[in-house]
Amino acid sequence: MLEDLQTPCLLLDEAAMNRNIKGMADRFKQIGVPLRPHLKTAKSIDVARILQDHGADRWTVSTLKEAEYFSSFGLKDILYAVSIVPQKMERIMKLNRAGAQMSICLDSTEMATHLSTMTLDGLKPRVYLEVDVDGHRTGVKADQQRAVDVTRILANASNLEFAGVMAHGGGVSYAANGQQELEAAAEQERTCTLAVKDAILEAGLPCPQVSIGSTPTALFGTSFEGVSDVRAGVYVFQDVFQTNLGMCAMEDVAATVLTSVISHAPHLNRIVVDAGGLALSKDRSCASQSNDCGFGLLSDIDGHVDPLLYVQGVSQEHGYITTRDGSPLPFELYPLGSQLRVLPNHSCMTVAAYEGYHMINGDHEGEWWPRCNRW
Amino acid sequence: MLEDLQTPCLLLDEAAMNRNIKGMADRFKQIGVPLRPHLKTAKSIDVARILQDHGADRWTVSTLKEAEYFSSFGLKDILYAVSIVPQKMERIMKLNRAGAQMSICLDSTEMATHLSTMTLDGLKPRVYLEVDVDGHRTGVKADQQRAVDVTRILANASNLEFAGVMAHGGGVSYAANGQQELEAAAEQERTCTLAVKDAILEAGLPCPQVSIGSTPTALFGTSFEGVSDVRAGVYVFQDVFQTNLGMCAMEDVAATVLTSVISHAPHLNRIVVDAGGLALSKDRSCASQSNDCGFGLLSDIDGHVDPLLYVQGVSQEHGYITTRDGSPLPFELYPLGSQLRVLPNHSCMTVAAYEGYHMINGDHEGEWWPRCNRW
Repeated sequence: MLEDLQTPCLLLDEAAMNRNIKGMADRFKQIGVPLRPHLKTAKSIDVARILQDHGADRWTVSTLKEAEYFSSFGLKDILYAVSIVPQKMERIMKLNRAGAQMSICLDSTEMATHLSTMTLDGLKPRVYLEVDVDGHRTGVKADQQRAVDVTRILANASNLEFAGVMAHGGGVSYAANGQQELEAAAEQERTCTLAVKDAILEAGLPCPQVSIGSTPTALFGTSFEGVSDVRAGVYVFQDVFQTNLGMCAMEDVAATVLTSVISHAPHLNRIVVDAGGLALSKDRSCASQSNDCGFGLLSDIDGHVDPLLYVQGVSQEHGYITTRDGSPLPFELYPLGSQLRVLPNHSCMTVAAYEGYHMINGDHEGEWWPRCNRW
Repeated sequence: MLEDLQTPCLLLDEAAMNRNIKGMADRFKQIGVPLRPHLKTAKSIDVARILQDHGADRWTVSTLKEAEYFSSFGLKDILYAVSIVPQKMERIMKLNRAGAQMSICLDSTEMATHLSTMTLDGLKPRVYLEVDVDGHRTGVKADQQRAVDVTRILANASNLEFAGVMAHGGGVSYAANGQQELEAAAEQERTCTLAVKDAILEAGLPCPQVSIGSTPTALFGTSFEGVSDVRAGVYVFQDVFQTNLGMCAMEDVAATVLTSVISHAPHLNRIVVDAGGLALSKDRSCASQSNDCGFGLLSDIDGHVDPLLYVQGVSQEHGYITTRDGSPLPFELYPLGSQLRVLPNHSCMTVAAYEGYHMINGDHEGEWWPRCNRW
């Protein structure tokens, strides 16, 4: 019974998650390009198993802790998609000795040179050159000599395997407005990455793989020609930001925070809950969207969204709910001690506050699935 | 050696923390009012021991997990300063049976009535009436009949002990600008709380205790007449927000995040580090201050702040550093693989991402002190 859980805690709607996973998997089976799911959102072997059941056989992670965790359960072919530094190579090599088949990425001649001179025990890590398609994160651009220079070092290094190019179009796609802009963002991600591949080939160097992806570009891309695999992560849980972006419906938001009403303040038109900044995160990514939802939307305990309410503010352990249109709150519907669920703005950030998921609405109802947090 | 730590990780400067703790303790010894330190920032028994060494013998917590953790080490007289709900009373009573001497708080006749009818095994929890001094969080106002109504129920309940009134002036004090406004905020917190006490006394009811506090009002209050104890927490670590507010100097910021430079992007005038939104939190509280520091300021590994730099943005595992004045970054000073430290905006939020502290600059250098996270 949800009523018996101590709040705040994290719920995972298995039926919604399975729909999200199946939808993406079916789409890419039809397209004929493999997915390389990003495990940074769920950080759960149980969720990874469901992705496997839908065909996933290669992976993306955002921390070495994730790589070590998933590798310990036998997952292989893992791309650590954050630029590598020398201090982390010992863990990469340990993973490779355990059979993880790690790929890493970088974007500089300095790091390529450094790696190429390291003693790596014959267990050649695969190294991607990261491409900057929209100024969002890290990487080289097609018109930068760096692209060819880095590749030449990697391709000539006897202790490394040059894997190809990779990119994440999370800047332009997350700012897109409507189908046309989303399709354009996806095409920009693909063509900018392929332009770097072309520059590499023109220089007489090889470029085996082309890995791209983000949830919006994966869902809205109209062509994946030339692409070797597609990375996406947040689609597994979705969230209010993705809903605003048109990626999903509100009922597809799979991860929610169960919280208790702890105070009524009629003089402030405010309901206070025990999910604050630590339980929800302070993510305000939807502040840039036309449908700004504060720190999250609300549903009743059964998941029915009340479109009138939102989390207007948070302190460390307090969440402040009011109405979106300024109308008086229906306090009687939300008595003290009753429970609500918060639909998070950005599920990757919110779920990271918890060590695991209370499973609801599926075959594993009542189970608790652990997460692999931190670094 | 810090160079050997895997990044991102959390550092705690013992000398800075000891200064912060001693400064506040000495101030209130002189004032003659006991401190009731809030343990929600440090969540560490090792830090609580230092507070004890400086005279602390009563405590505030923001979660029952903290109460259970600190009680297990023998700490007593613990105020859980988040409005209570019935589902949490079993844990309160278990704590009291273990000798924790818990106090709780509430602000409604409904909750007071509910508690007064519960079977509480003769272990009377102390109950505070929370007062709203600035519309910040929860509580009743002096002009609300609720104040007297709640008190009457609590004072007449045979299974409870009415403790008195408590307030947290974190709204007006955190928005204050300069010494005069800070002093006024502190006086508002005190006088509004005492006004509720007066209303209670006028109704012929008792009001034994008056507990108030926040780091700014504790540090800038000019009178604590009529106050029984003062609660404050973030002063132990301080942060960039508190520095901007005039609570401390930059060298008093005790908790910092050690991070590695993972990419240089001259075309974006950007240094990228491996401390992103999860490692720093997405707290943007200083956005409302005149000295907006993005997601944090930067120092070198030895703690020397570079006033030119700030964390402009974050993704889940990436932090984006640029110059505050738009001038070109001195990339050569921060080579790939080198380490920096991030001074957090809001230390309570940032340190919660970690399971413990790497101690530096003090008697316990090299030790790792665990934290008690979650609920």
